[in-house]
Amino acid sequence: MAPVAPRSGDAIFASVERVNAELFTLTYGAIVRQLLTDLEEVEEVNKQLDQMGYNIGVRLVDEFLAKSNVSRCVDFKETAEVIAKVGFKMFLGVTASVSNWDAEGTTCSIILEDNPLVDFVELPDTCQGLYYCNVLSGVIRGALEMVSMKTEVTWLRDMLRGDDAFELQVKLLKQVPEEYPYKDDE
Amino acid sequence: MAPVAPRSGDAIFASVERVNAELFTLTYGAIVRQLLTDLEEVEEVNKQLDQMGYNIGVRLVDEFLAKSNVSRCVDFKETAEVIAKVGFKMFLGVTASVSNWDAEGTTCSIILEDNPLVDFVELPDTCQGLYYCNVLSGVIRGALEMVSMKTEVTWLRDMLRGDDAFELQVKLLKQVPEEYPYKDDE
Repeated sequence: MAPVAPRSGDAIFASVERVNAELFTLTYGAIVRQLLTDLEEVEEVNKQLDQMGYNIGVRLVDEFLAKSNVSRCVDFKETAEVIAKVGFKMFLGVTASVSNWDAEGTTCSIILEDNPLVDFVELPDTCQGLYYCNVLSGVIRGALEMVSMKTEVTWLRDMLRGDDAFELQVKLLKQVPEEYPYKDDE
Repeated sequence: MAPVAPRSGDAIFASVERVNAELFTLTYGAIVRQLLTDLEEVEEVNKQLDQMGYNIGVRLVDEFLAKSNVSRCVDFKETAEVIAKVGFKMFLGVTASVSNWDAEGTTCSIILEDNPLVDFVELPDTCQGLYYCNVLSGVIRGALEMVSMKTEVTWLRDMLRGDDAFELQVKLLKQVPEEYPYKDDE
């Protein structure tokens, strides 16, 4: 079977229920501020944002599969493309690109130039070390875990730290193949 | 000058940037869960959600005034209608209704039958007393304070507590009139 080409998320995004992006941005900002107040340690805030993202990702993947009509991805490469082109569009209304593949095809970068999470955000000096958008790495990790891909997701570039884009490195650690016991002789 | 009739927020909602409602719902759920873990006391969580909403409201009002082209409201009555018909539509994509005015025209109810914050939400028994949507009361209070109306906002009905709608009572405590010193003889 030929691999299904990843489709753009535009049509899906247009068809799902949505809320105002600024409300979302401000709400997310309120979470981060709350966590900074409650936890004090920036490292702890990064962890909590990632964990929150993970919890969101494991649930969001259902909506993704139900609404996107994306068929099973043949490999990690296709999966990464679908996340960038369909997933980001469908949920945040922006598209991302995939690049920097390693030779094994198990590590790549998802690059985001437009990121609604950071509109109006400036980090004070006291927040050095904060990965403000860490919820995103958690979402990707959580969502991929639900489709049997264990990954490690880390920030390589962050515009709030002065970089020219947001770059998330996604590294496939382990893929649990889904078994079809009655077809294993094919 | 005749009062400007409140317009529907449909056109405005269609023109602003948006994100997926389910992502917003899950993100909001993650905040509430986080606060419940960190603060333990449900009463404290209610307060924090209200405070977060207040902080969001004081900023959201700028976007509202810039995008909605709503002219100055003549009185509290018109203001309440604009919040329900334009504000809720513009930010959450739903409309609310206004009713239960008192004789003085200073207290009313904003009633919400469709509320994206609570999709998939069920409160466990340990969360009795939680006003899950308390961020909304804070948003209204914060936004109104920025247009010189000091209000008290309380929940009268809550579908997560078994009621048939969400009903927020908005009580005008004090209105600071904006002065036009050179026209006070009109």
